[in-house]
Amino acid sequence: MSRFWNPVVQTLTPYTPGEQPQMARLVKLNTNESPYGPSPKALTAISQQINEDLRLYPDPGGAALKKAIADLHGLDPKQVFLGNGSDEVLAHVFLGLLKQAQPVQFPDITYSFYPVYCKLFGMEYQTIPLGPDFEVDTRDFTFPNGGIIFPNPNAPTGRAIPRAEIEALLAKNTASVLVIDEAYVDYGTESCIPLLRGSACPENLLVVHTLSKSRALAGLRVGFAVGHPTLIEGLERVKNSFNSYPLGKLAQVGAIAAVEDQAHLEATSAKVIKTRERLVKELESLGFATLPSTANFIFTQHPKHAGATLYQALRDRGIIVRHFKLPRIDNFLRITIGTDEQSNELLTALKEIVSKA
Amino acid sequence: MSRFWNPVVQTLTPYTPGEQPQMARLVKLNTNESPYGPSPKALTAISQQINEDLRLYPDPGGAALKKAIADLHGLDPKQVFLGNGSDEVLAHVFLGLLKQAQPVQFPDITYSFYPVYCKLFGMEYQTIPLGPDFEVDTRDFTFPNGGIIFPNPNAPTGRAIPRAEIEALLAKNTASVLVIDEAYVDYGTESCIPLLRGSACPENLLVVHTLSKSRALAGLRVGFAVGHPTLIEGLERVKNSFNSYPLGKLAQVGAIAAVEDQAHLEATSAKVIKTRERLVKELESLGFATLPSTANFIFTQHPKHAGATLYQALRDRGIIVRHFKLPRIDNFLRITIGTDEQSNELLTALKEIVSKA
Repeated sequence: MSRFWNPVVQTLTPYTPGEQPQMARLVKLNTNESPYGPSPKALTAISQQINEDLRLYPDPGGAALKKAIADLHGLDPKQVFLGNGSDEVLAHVFLGLLKQAQPVQFPDITYSFYPVYCKLFGMEYQTIPLGPDFEVDTRDFTFPNGGIIFPNPNAPTGRAIPRAEIEALLAKNTASVLVIDEAYVDYGTESCIPLLRGSACPENLLVVHTLSKSRALAGLRVGFAVGHPTLIEGLERVKNSFNSYPLGKLAQVGAIAAVEDQAHLEATSAKVIKTRERLVKELESLGFATLPSTANFIFTQHPKHAGATLYQALRDRGIIVRHFKLPRIDNFLRITIGTDEQSNELLTALKEIVSKA
Repeated sequence: MSRFWNPVVQTLTPYTPGEQPQMARLVKLNTNESPYGPSPKALTAISQQINEDLRLYPDPGGAALKKAIADLHGLDPKQVFLGNGSDEVLAHVFLGLLKQAQPVQFPDITYSFYPVYCKLFGMEYQTIPLGPDFEVDTRDFTFPNGGIIFPNPNAPTGRAIPRAEIEALLAKNTASVLVIDEAYVDYGTESCIPLLRGSACPENLLVVHTLSKSRALAGLRVGFAVGHPTLIEGLERVKNSFNSYPLGKLAQVGAIAAVEDQAHLEATSAKVIKTRERLVKELESLGFATLPSTANFIFTQHPKHAGATLYQALRDRGIIVRHFKLPRIDNFLRITIGTDEQSNELLTALKEIVSKA
């Protein structure tokens, strides 16, 4: 504490990211990174940019990267907003679009950064309870609101809803922005990006993506939002009032190459999906109940073993998963889908833990 | 405009960075980049990090980089805050430390991003006019205030004040934070960092640095602030409520190597200083009056040629400098110190322009 802080700072409960432990020989299944590494083309593109020109500022507008993203998704570059990871994109979205007279709404169990942004920017929010099966029920959002945001698939549950449900919500939610956070969309969820194409693009739908998951570039820090050009213009105004150059040169060239290598994304995502389906089945045979997941992680619990206990027992064996000490989900583990080898190590450890106790 | 923006967004006048034109054969003297490139050790360190591990999140706390900065400056790592360029550091400083019941104070002629942050965060500010010779006169700040911030040397003037004057101001300014923005300190200005060492570190002095100027890594996006651990803790709370991972892996390893290569900084800064002194003299012989500069840029005007005209005439010859259409300084050009060759091209062009008219 310091009397020199802005009074709000004292009230903040910052977001706690999954740890990046420095232990050797670790099975790291706690922060939903891809086990497969980025497109080799991205690594090559970055390598070619490592020269004296790093003395120069990058393109503040990221025009080439915007074009690559627009081309991939059938959009106009004016529909693309870039940020230093999707967390920064979301921060600008909260301040620039979701801070309104009415409170913003999001699920009670969701990405835990959302209420943190609200505290930082002095925004009211309202949480909408997930349904009995931990699903986002779009019929539960109420009007008027200052905006609606949820991940699809949701985190940390991994459950997705069909695009048609989001379209139905959008038809009702005409007075505020609807933000779909598609960080984990590439593992079997219907994206809402097709709704943004052409002249039918709604003025109040924004879709947020990251290159930290399926593009396997968490170390590079790139995320983006796509939506109507007027929404993007609002975000650009905020960004250019905060930091002109959030993306360095290496991040821009690496992201371009990664975005252009759709084959790498599809091949690695398919492998993750296959491992996920096998892992869910094997866990079932150990007595675990897993929520249906279309993410690169699963949310699972055991009827006889507390989540916190399992978390610690795995950690003692060098396997790091994520456990949230929060109402309704404190018996669950969130487990990132790793390689098949990592899944086997996890299953071996869990078999031992479950049978012992 | 969009009815879906937060009402404040409409009122924003975002910061305009110096352009990064894509013209070939350009003499680019407009954004105060180093003409000499970063430490080769930084390039090597980055190269070694380009591998599949980019799939993993970086250290959110940047511990190794904090230690390198602390070691260089004789500080404790707890006195170091990291950001995505010093612009992001400053953004967090404005929201976290300078947003107070009283307005923040800064010079009327200074880094033009300061009022932009204030608008974004809904903060009041008060500008203190520079003295008759465009100097920051620390006796002109008033109390109480919500904080004081100015660059030393100031931008875009290049004029510095001695550390003793800042110490005298600090002795009077006990109720708010004093921020010294030392982006250009390495070209002949006394740094305030020595004041932060050991147990005498004041609780309300913060010094901000960037790696984009003397460390020649503008393309990488790294800046930092140093001060009392309680000030840093406040900034960390804000940062961790905004974006857990502002610095990617490549930025962290590159910055560490750059910070450790003090010899490279000293050699390249000495060259810039030498070129600056020569350029000022040669400009004088063409009739230009240049403010005393301890930066890697100069602020200069000609009694018979308007700044805007000179700016355009240079641009027509492929030489880009910076011109601000602002009261009191609209006759000036801000010229980045480039190589001797670039200075010669500039001088040749100006000689031709000045003699013609």
